[in-house]
Amino acid sequence: MHSVSVALGSRSYDILIEPGLLQRAGELIAKQLGNRRLAIVTDSNVAPLHLGTLVESLEKAGLTAQEIIVPAGEASKCLTMVEEVCEQMVAARHDRGSAVLALGGGVIGDLAGFVAAIYFRGIPFVQIPTTVMAQVDSAVGGKTGVNTRKAKNLLGSFHQPSLVLADIETLLTLPDRALFEGFAEVIKHGIIRDREFFHSLTPIRSQLDAIRSRQAAPDALTAVIKRNVEIKAAVVAEDEHETKDIRALLNFGHTIGHAIEAVAGYGQLLHGEAISLGMVAAANLSVSHAGLPEPERAGIVEMLQRYNLPVKPEHPLDTPAILDTLMSDKKFKAGSIRFVLSSRIGEAFVSKDVALKDIEAALASSF
Amino acid sequence: MHSVSVALGSRSYDILIEPGLLQRAGELIAKQLGNRRLAIVTDSNVAPLHLGTLVESLEKAGLTAQEIIVPAGEASKCLTMVEEVCEQMVAARHDRGSAVLALGGGVIGDLAGFVAAIYFRGIPFVQIPTTVMAQVDSAVGGKTGVNTRKAKNLLGSFHQPSLVLADIETLLTLPDRALFEGFAEVIKHGIIRDREFFHSLTPIRSQLDAIRSRQAAPDALTAVIKRNVEIKAAVVAEDEHETKDIRALLNFGHTIGHAIEAVAGYGQLLHGEAISLGMVAAANLSVSHAGLPEPERAGIVEMLQRYNLPVKPEHPLDTPAILDTLMSDKKFKAGSIRFVLSSRIGEAFVSKDVALKDIEAALASSF
Repeated sequence: MHSVSVALGSRSYDILIEPGLLQRAGELIAKQLGNRRLAIVTDSNVAPLHLGTLVESLEKAGLTAQEIIVPAGEASKCLTMVEEVCEQMVAARHDRGSAVLALGGGVIGDLAGFVAAIYFRGIPFVQIPTTVMAQVDSAVGGKTGVNTRKAKNLLGSFHQPSLVLADIETLLTLPDRALFEGFAEVIKHGIIRDREFFHSLTPIRSQLDAIRSRQAAPDALTAVIKRNVEIKAAVVAEDEHETKDIRALLNFGHTIGHAIEAVAGYGQLLHGEAISLGMVAAANLSVSHAGLPEPERAGIVEMLQRYNLPVKPEHPLDTPAILDTLMSDKKFKAGSIRFVLSSRIGEAFVSKDVALKDIEAALASSF
Repeated sequence: MHSVSVALGSRSYDILIEPGLLQRAGELIAKQLGNRRLAIVTDSNVAPLHLGTLVESLEKAGLTAQEIIVPAGEASKCLTMVEEVCEQMVAARHDRGSAVLALGGGVIGDLAGFVAAIYFRGIPFVQIPTTVMAQVDSAVGGKTGVNTRKAKNLLGSFHQPSLVLADIETLLTLPDRALFEGFAEVIKHGIIRDREFFHSLTPIRSQLDAIRSRQAAPDALTAVIKRNVEIKAAVVAEDEHETKDIRALLNFGHTIGHAIEAVAGYGQLLHGEAISLGMVAAANLSVSHAGLPEPERAGIVEMLQRYNLPVKPEHPLDTPAILDTLMSDKKFKAGSIRFVLSSRIGEAFVSKDVALKDIEAALASSF
């Protein structure tokens, strides 16, 4: 079992990574949280696949849990669903001695984490991410929250989990689109922080189908997740609340990606697919504004394609709507945007020199 | 101008107290927060009385503010209203450089504070409490949040304000019930922490009508507010997150009071009126379980009556429903209740020896 620690003083926690970890969840959670009452929050896609295994493992450890199943999809990431989950927890008489388990992808982690952040003004929670996206990104770092009608992740809290359990086997059952969208964040981690890791992704892609069809051991996939978790954990430990322009580097491709996602309508494009398009535009802006060599830009686009990620939108983009959405983005700070650029694969920085018209031009030239 | 500091390290802030302070709000806010975009959250009762004065004062200081007016009353303290306020702020393009001003009573402070706690994962806010209840209690200490359908204050965050502005003149226009309900918390502060202050409340009651009709200077009222703020600020500084059984002392009368309030239906009894009934029951339990002398119990009841506060319910209490509601109270910790008792006016402690049947008996004998 691999263990990566997120070093945040009294709020430090471990991310455990292993194929088959779900079957040991009960003992690990009991060890971390003691004999608490638990509420499992999961969704209608994940429940049939993994809820039984989790509940059985909890029972073996003497733990009991309420099961709360929300509709799968981004639309569940809203305040109305927060209220619905909380009302179910109130009805089951959960109190400040209870804890929440988030079993699922990014939507579930963000939603259940936010519920844990505000229930009785904060109770502990455990992330049990079941997608690549959640294991390498959203389950690590304590950002929780929901969308408003117009803006993604606009309402939320920083609330660190007590433990993260990443079971690699849950990834093997993901539909193709859900598997590959997570690699948008994986590729991003390489671009902003680890050149060698970025290039190691080429051979892993060629092994992936064999791993998925269980003709190969999932070691290579485990190694990818572990390296990504290390990168994310280090960034979070350096800049938990995104006050130092370090955590902001994780937003490479996200400023434009979020806007494309919002304008397309949540759920039309998967998050990772929108981020892939955002990274293509960010790579273009990196060439013009940060001296990223053209072959490196092409290498980024090629790597995204290798993982079945879109590098051109299927339908023409509604550029005015995207620019309008950008104006209400969190990264707009007192009117000027903070935009993440890369001057070389493996390195990134926050630029204040990207204007709205530059983004408009990048959208026009990228797609 | 009186100033009381809440000592919380990097999150310390001042509570400023003075008749007429609202007219100076602009300069004081600009000094504290700089030139930020502001969103004023207020309600339909307070807006006609004080919003104009605040906006004028902000404009004089070169600040502009969005005005968000919610319906007056406890029903606005819900997640649906949080979403509504946030959507209005999104539409006005508020970002992480913005701040919220909470102008009103406890409902507005809790609601707007919670909005500030989660908007972009937390932006600054200023409390401008306009009721006794809010000035002496809810605006000080950083507890923000909303009710669920069945339980009061169950969802929320700790989010300290950057500044609290308590204008004594806003109290002079309060309707009688709203004025007097706040004195439930004032009397409570005396019971749990300051015997001398408790007894000083007798002469102040006799001056109150003269102050309200402006036949006397509001000095005595200012002194009451100041002493209460000092008590609350000291308690909060000692135990910000209620982990040490110190802040919990502020719940004297609240465990039963909240349950009475919830069962009556929010808005039927004012919060302070429900707390008054809760304190009568808690005083009874203090006689049987903590040795509070009978004359001191009678003195508490007499003081509540002096401030027009109910000491018997108007209608017979629905005791089974109250006990059921108590079971979902935040103070129920892993099944057993933590109940605040007083052994002597001026002193209180958290007891674990009060069982549900004791509460049932106290309800029967008190009313």
